[in-house]
Amino acid sequence: MSDEKLPLRSENYSEWYNTLVQRAELADYAPVRGCMVVRPYGWSLWENIQQALDRRFKATGHVNAAFPLFIPMSFLEKEKAHVEGFSPELAVVTIGGGETLEEPLVVRPTSETVIGYMYSKWIKSYRDLPVLINQWANVVRWEMRTRLFLRTLEFFWQEGHTAHATSEEAEAETRRMLDVYADFAINDGAVPVISGRKSEKEKFAGAVNSYTIEAMMGDKRALQSGTSHFLGQNFAKAFNIQYLDPTNTLQYCWTTSWGLSTRFIGAIIMTHGDDQGLVLPPKLAPIQIVIVPIYKNEDERVKVMTAVAAVTEELKDFRLKVDDRQEVTPGFKFNDWEMRGVPLRIEIGPKDVEKGSVAFARRDAPGRAGKSFVPRDRLAQRVAEMLQTIQTSLHEKALAFRKANTHEPGDYAELCQVVEDGFAFAWWCGRAECEAKVKEDTKATTRCIPFEQPGGEGKCIVCGAQSSEKVIFAKAY
Amino acid sequence: MSDEKLPLRSENYSEWYNTLVQRAELADYAPVRGCMVVRPYGWSLWENIQQALDRRFKATGHVNAAFPLFIPMSFLEKEKAHVEGFSPELAVVTIGGGETLEEPLVVRPTSETVIGYMYSKWIKSYRDLPVLINQWANVVRWEMRTRLFLRTLEFFWQEGHTAHATSEEAEAETRRMLDVYADFAINDGAVPVISGRKSEKEKFAGAVNSYTIEAMMGDKRALQSGTSHFLGQNFAKAFNIQYLDPTNTLQYCWTTSWGLSTRFIGAIIMTHGDDQGLVLPPKLAPIQIVIVPIYKNEDERVKVMTAVAAVTEELKDFRLKVDDRQEVTPGFKFNDWEMRGVPLRIEIGPKDVEKGSVAFARRDAPGRAGKSFVPRDRLAQRVAEMLQTIQTSLHEKALAFRKANTHEPGDYAELCQVVEDGFAFAWWCGRAECEAKVKEDTKATTRCIPFEQPGGEGKCIVCGAQSSEKVIFAKAY
Repeated sequence: MSDEKLPLRSENYSEWYNTLVQRAELADYAPVRGCMVVRPYGWSLWENIQQALDRRFKATGHVNAAFPLFIPMSFLEKEKAHVEGFSPELAVVTIGGGETLEEPLVVRPTSETVIGYMYSKWIKSYRDLPVLINQWANVVRWEMRTRLFLRTLEFFWQEGHTAHATSEEAEAETRRMLDVYADFAINDGAVPVISGRKSEKEKFAGAVNSYTIEAMMGDKRALQSGTSHFLGQNFAKAFNIQYLDPTNTLQYCWTTSWGLSTRFIGAIIMTHGDDQGLVLPPKLAPIQIVIVPIYKNEDERVKVMTAVAAVTEELKDFRLKVDDRQEVTPGFKFNDWEMRGVPLRIEIGPKDVEKGSVAFARRDAPGRAGKSFVPRDRLAQRVAEMLQTIQTSLHEKALAFRKANTHEPGDYAELCQVVEDGFAFAWWCGRAECEAKVKEDTKATTRCIPFEQPGGEGKCIVCGAQSSEKVIFAKAY
Repeated sequence: MSDEKLPLRSENYSEWYNTLVQRAELADYAPVRGCMVVRPYGWSLWENIQQALDRRFKATGHVNAAFPLFIPMSFLEKEKAHVEGFSPELAVVTIGGGETLEEPLVVRPTSETVIGYMYSKWIKSYRDLPVLINQWANVVRWEMRTRLFLRTLEFFWQEGHTAHATSEEAEAETRRMLDVYADFAINDGAVPVISGRKSEKEKFAGAVNSYTIEAMMGDKRALQSGTSHFLGQNFAKAFNIQYLDPTNTLQYCWTTSWGLSTRFIGAIIMTHGDDQGLVLPPKLAPIQIVIVPIYKNEDERVKVMTAVAAVTEELKDFRLKVDDRQEVTPGFKFNDWEMRGVPLRIEIGPKDVEKGSVAFARRDAPGRAGKSFVPRDRLAQRVAEMLQTIQTSLHEKALAFRKANTHEPGDYAELCQVVEDGFAFAWWCGRAECEAKVKEDTKATTRCIPFEQPGGEGKCIVCGAQSSEKVIFAKAY
C-alpha cells in the first residue's frame, strides 16, 4: 500500500472508486482491455458472498452444476429477443486447434440457450420437474466502457436456471429468488435494496418479466444488484423443453433464470465506503477483526504479545488478523486497515494488559466516536455483539441516506431536477414513450416499479395520463 | 435411470466407463464437440474435492484469486517451450463486439503467462515474497479425442502459481504441493498414487522439473492425477518478475505451478467402480448414506417411516438421502443407488423396527458379505466407523491391485509383454532414445521416476547402460 491519500469521495467519486479498488488490492486491470484480475482480498470477499448465497440456494432446494463456456452461434439465434439483446456484445471463437471452425462459438454471455438445450434432453416427464439448478461461472460481454467490478468484459456470477410444470410455479420461483437476493443484500451486505419489476424496455432480452433489486450508491446513482427473470415459455419453445403431464400429454415447460455477479462487490464499496477507504459489512468481510499490538520496547512487546496470543485464541472463531509488522508504526497500520475496510480494530497496549482490557475501534465510526475500552472477560461475546451492531448500523445508515435522497417530484420539471441528485419516485403510465423522454432529457432510466406501492392512482409525471403504479427514475451505473 | 444393465466392466472397460458416467448422471455431452456438462451429482462430487483440496491449500498458506480467461496471443510466445507445447491446442477469439480484434485472444489453456505478467506488476521487494496464489477455474485445450472427465475441450481445475526468492524455496514448494495432492488422493479419494518426477520428454512445457502423482486404473492403465512444476526462472525471465533483495539488488523470482482437475473424478470412477457401477469413497461421496424403507402395507409404512425419521435425525451430520419413492420397488432402489456408488445403504423394515436395529449394506462389498444387522443405539458412531472402514478398505483394495499388477521385468522382451497388462518398474538410463523406443514398440510411456527407489544401480531395461534410477513404464490415459 502507498502512503498517498485517496482522492476524496466527496470531490471525485469516480476517481475515489477506481483508486480505492486498486489500492485496497481488491482487483487490478488485466492486460486485455476491460478484463479484471480479482486479487486475493477481493476474491475472499467474493467467496464469502458465494457462501452466503449458496447456503440460501441450497436451503431453497437448488443444486449446482457446470455448463459449457462455448455456445454454438446458432443457439443464440433461436430466441429472437435474446439474440438482438446479446449479439452486439459477443466474443467469438473462430479458430480451434489451428483450424477455422465451421460454426463459430460464442463465449457465453449468459447460459439460457445452452442450458435450455440440455434441459430438453433431460426432462421427459412431470416427475422430472421442477429442475432447480444453479452454476457459479464466468461470462463474457464485450462492453465498451468498463470499470472494475461494475462492468468488465469477463465477470463472475451465479446463474440459476429452473424449469417448471406451470406458469404459477415458475412465477413463484422467480419471486422467491428475488427475495433471496434481497435478504442477502440487506442482511449480509447491509445494502438496502428496493425490490420491483423492470419496465418492458429494461427487462432481460427474452424474458416475459424481469425483477430486480436496486440500490442507491454513495453518489446517489442506482446500481442494479441482482435480477430474476420469468421467461414464460419463450426458451422452452425455442429449445423444445417439453414434458409429459400426468395425462400423458406433451406440454412446454415454464422457465426462469436469475443472477447476481461480482458487481455486488461494487455495490458494497459504493454503499459503505468513505474518504478513508472501504467499509466492509462484518458478515462478508474477509477480515472481521484486526489486532494491532502497541509497545515501545522489548519488555512491553513481550507482555503485549502474550496478551495478543491469548485474545487471538479466544477469538479464533472470527476471521481475524494480527498485524505484528515491526517495520511500520501503529498509526500506519490503523490507516492501512481502515483503507481496507476491516470492521473492527482491537488495540492492545501495555496499559490495556495491566487493566485487563482492550480498545475497540469501529471502522464505521472513525475517530473518538467509535472508540471504546472493553474488559477482556467474555471478549468473544462482546466482539460478536459489536460486529452485529456495526452490521446493523451500516444498513440503517445506508437506508437513511437512500430515504433522504429519494424524492417525490410534483411535476416534470421537478422530476428532471431531482434525478440530478437522487432517486425520483413518481407515477408513470407505463408507456415506453414517457420513459424514453425522461431518458433523453435527463439520462435517468426507470429502475424498477417497486412491489411496495402507495396504492390508489395518480397522474403520469411525464404525460399526465391516469396511472396506477409509481416507478423509480434514477441515473444508474 | 434406466433398467438396462451396464456394459460389463471386465468385458468392455471403455463402454462401461462411458455408459456409467452418463447413467449415474455425473456428466453429459455438451452440444459443442468435446465439451461436457457436469451434472449436479458430478458437480457435488467436484465440490467435495474442491473443499478437501482448498482446506489443504489454505492450511499451507495459500490464498485464492481469479485471473482472466483471455490471454493475448503474444504472451504465450514469450516462453519458447511453453508456446510449442500449447499452440496446437488453442481456442482463439478473433471477434469481439462485432469487430475483428487487432490481437487475437487465446482462451487460457493454463495461466502461467498472464499470472506471470501480473506478478511482475505486483512484486517489488523481497518483502512481497513468497506469493502463494491459487485459482479455481475453467481452461480450454483443443483436444482431438475426448472423453468425459478424462480429456475434454473445456475442463475445470485449480492452478496454483507461486513466486519465491530462492530456488530452494520454490523447489520445496513444488514438492510440498505434490505431497498435498498425494495426501488428498490417498486419504480422501482412496486412490493410491505413486509420487515421482516426470522425464524430460513428459514434463510440462516450460518447466525445469515436473512432478506427478500416478494412479493405476481398473484396466491397469495409468492416469496422471495431479502435477506440480518447478519453473525455475523461465517464466520470471520471460515476464520480468523481479524483486529487490535485502541488499537492494534486482533479482529474478523462482516460480512454481501445480494443478489438479476434474480428471480426478475419472480416477475415482476407474479406480473403484465395478460391474454394478460407481463406488465412491465416503469422504468425497455426494451422498454417503441412502436409507431405504421397506414395508408391505400402510400400517408397516407408518411404523417404518417413524423409525426412518428418527434415524435421519440422529444421522443429520452425514450426507444422507432417504429414498421414499413409492412408485419403485426396494430392489430397484438398491440397484439405483449401487449404480450411483453410495457407500452405505441402510435398510429399515418392520422387523428392524421391532428389534431396534437396522441393516447395513456396504457398497464396496455387494451381496451377503457386505450385509450386517446393527443395533440402533449409538448409531451415528457405528455409521462413522463403518464409513471409515469402507474408506480404508477401498484404498487397501486398490493398492493391492496396483501391487499385484506392477511388474519388474528382467529384460526388454518381458518389459514389452508386461506393459500390455500392468505397470513395469524398471531401470532406465534416462536417455530420450530409450524412452522413445519403448513408446514406439509398445505405446507405453514413462509415467514417473518414483521418489521411492530401491537404491543401488542396474542396467537400463532398453539399452543395458548403467542406470541409477528405476522408472514406471505404462500405457496411460
